[in-house]
Amino acid sequence: MPLRGEVVAIGNELLSGRTLNSNATWISGQLRDLGVEVQHHQVVPDAAEEICSGLDLALSRSDVVVATGGLGPTCDDLTRSVIADYFGTELTLNDEVLSDLKKRYGNRKISLEDQATIPKSAHYFLNQVGTAPGLCFEKEGKWVFFIQGVPLEMESTFRTGVAPFLEERLPKPQRMKQKKIHLIQVSESEIDPLLRLLSEEHCNVEIGCYPAQGTLTVTFSSLKGEDELEECADVLRQTYAKQHFESVSGTIEEALHHHLCENGLTLGIAESCTGGAIITRMSARSGASAFLQGGVISYANEVKENLLGVRSESLKAYGAVSEEVAREMAEGICKATGATCGISTTGVAGPTGGSEEKPVGLVWVAIAHRGKETITRKLQLKGNRESIIRRCSTILLSDLWKVLSHG
Amino acid sequence: MPLRGEVVAIGNELLSGRTLNSNATWISGQLRDLGVEVQHHQVVPDAAEEICSGLDLALSRSDVVVATGGLGPTCDDLTRSVIADYFGTELTLNDEVLSDLKKRYGNRKISLEDQATIPKSAHYFLNQVGTAPGLCFEKEGKWVFFIQGVPLEMESTFRTGVAPFLEERLPKPQRMKQKKIHLIQVSESEIDPLLRLLSEEHCNVEIGCYPAQGTLTVTFSSLKGEDELEECADVLRQTYAKQHFESVSGTIEEALHHHLCENGLTLGIAESCTGGAIITRMSARSGASAFLQGGVISYANEVKENLLGVRSESLKAYGAVSEEVAREMAEGICKATGATCGISTTGVAGPTGGSEEKPVGLVWVAIAHRGKETITRKLQLKGNRESIIRRCSTILLSDLWKVLSHG
Repeated sequence: MPLRGEVVAIGNELLSGRTLNSNATWISGQLRDLGVEVQHHQVVPDAAEEICSGLDLALSRSDVVVATGGLGPTCDDLTRSVIADYFGTELTLNDEVLSDLKKRYGNRKISLEDQATIPKSAHYFLNQVGTAPGLCFEKEGKWVFFIQGVPLEMESTFRTGVAPFLEERLPKPQRMKQKKIHLIQVSESEIDPLLRLLSEEHCNVEIGCYPAQGTLTVTFSSLKGEDELEECADVLRQTYAKQHFESVSGTIEEALHHHLCENGLTLGIAESCTGGAIITRMSARSGASAFLQGGVISYANEVKENLLGVRSESLKAYGAVSEEVAREMAEGICKATGATCGISTTGVAGPTGGSEEKPVGLVWVAIAHRGKETITRKLQLKGNRESIIRRCSTILLSDLWKVLSHG
Repeated sequence: MPLRGEVVAIGNELLSGRTLNSNATWISGQLRDLGVEVQHHQVVPDAAEEICSGLDLALSRSDVVVATGGLGPTCDDLTRSVIADYFGTELTLNDEVLSDLKKRYGNRKISLEDQATIPKSAHYFLNQVGTAPGLCFEKEGKWVFFIQGVPLEMESTFRTGVAPFLEERLPKPQRMKQKKIHLIQVSESEIDPLLRLLSEEHCNVEIGCYPAQGTLTVTFSSLKGEDELEECADVLRQTYAKQHFESVSGTIEEALHHHLCENGLTLGIAESCTGGAIITRMSARSGASAFLQGGVISYANEVKENLLGVRSESLKAYGAVSEEVAREMAEGICKATGATCGISTTGVAGPTGGSEEKPVGLVWVAIAHRGKETITRKLQLKGNRESIIRRCSTILLSDLWKVLSHG
């Protein structure tokens, strides 16, 4: 039975719709790697009694609790004084923390003494990128951590403080064994009958199915042997031989990154309606410069002509959102960047700019591959601007992966 | 006293660190607009008793509960059967839902009857972009909604089902009045003494302070008159006259979007280490094509030379990460795209590729403005690849906004 974990995020900004709680996701992944299985998240307001009830609930059901937020220097940051009361201790100025802060900030910051004032009985972790130290209380064999809400500081304090603290004290994780299969262009409904069948045949195996904007991840988990997991995974690999890709992160861009590098291929990207979303995804992984030559985002027609060599006749005859222009963009970016493969998008991401002939959601994409015929495809996507851009990006990257892997 | 809201997200994928709970953020913003103040988020696993305890807790403290996830057609989707039990009703095949699904999917989907089988006593909302209908139960004067976990379907069902349902039944929202002030290049610690002072002078006003990767939003809220809020806001506007920007979303890109459009300026963007992150941010808002000519992402040196006109002598003499190359990139993108302003980045985003002379986090940025001297700036950023890219982007966009607004 793995230890049960819980993340309690404190902050009105998370409840107002203003700020994404990306901390909870990140911390859950980290705790999982330490052998702690996160079973609950809570978000509570910046209010003393709410913070206390949140802690009561968390301590009633979890072994390791990580709370974030409210440790900053401004007057809406209540956490330190509330938890001092909660754990029956008092706030005192901590000399080690203060001297660390003075070393790093000198006289530039004004609230250093405030930030160095922490609950007396707490363990603390120096903050390496900001001011508020992380804190830890032990209660009835359970641990409660308090770390900053700003992601950069939170991640740093978790890595340098919380993780080593837990690693020292936790048994080596007895992890659930898991196999993941990632698929492109398969829907949840389509795969469901097969998953139900597998679920009946393998009652020790937990099956999960997670769609993510154009890709689908199926997980098989079990505390028992790996053979059964491998069997299930094989069924999927065989059924979806051309749609199955390998990727640690589950993203198609990782699969492409590896494929391009391993085969000595290079990529150029020409985007119009996707506005840079595709190249941002392809450049997000370290080492992208090994295959990514570069890209052009061409909103204006003159940029399509000058930088990508799209012919003005094509723009006039067919318009910017057309098969011909997508083709010329993909071929043009190969030429302009010297890449072996080029991909392009041109479409109407909306919400404005649509017409009867070319409605919002219409996108032409193309794949140019040196020495082969350029492939074009017309997409008609639904949803808002953001989801049209995201879905178009995933479809084009999946298409590219399919062309490169299976011809 | 506004109605209290709560979002309960159901799904192991949210607890494993795999998937961001962006739904909770989005729903919170929507409920706020309807006059419901969200005070809690919960995330619970895909397990019957966990779902039930989550609902118990939510119903004990909230008036409007929106639950997401677990409604899909696969075998790990438990929500429908669990809530039928929870609300003491049974699952039955709903003819209207089934005929809607058949109309939209014909015989292409296999689990239509499963998806049309819903708790008998529930209100339901047809799903306009997927298969699972949204559900609503009324219990002791409180409402509990169950909608899909896939963001696209969730948003659509909320907009077309949940929101109109609540609008019909809720009193016109008596909203807290709020003023927001957005600042660039001011830190939380720096502004804190002033906020404490304002907080003492105006005890009816709640003050919040929210840093967001290079910008800072200060909120003043009160149920009483707006004059006091305006007074507080004015103090900030005067103190930070050159750092204060107007923006509904709180992003610097929105402020820039308006400034560029209103002044008939156009923008070209040349990125190296930021890999498209800046142009993606500037193109994310509808209408960006009014000012955004386009951009070049130049990873390879030959792309810097061929598309941006960076001189090979500069690359040889100073290296790609240098003041001179940043300058030539910014000037080059103006020329290549015909834009009135050009911005550029070249640096080491890491984690690999750093050297003693040019460490990870070193970035040169430049701003070219037709008819004026090009401005360059050296940044030395901390953090991981993602945060270096994000922070560099915000700093450069903030600099551009300052140059354009205040010269």
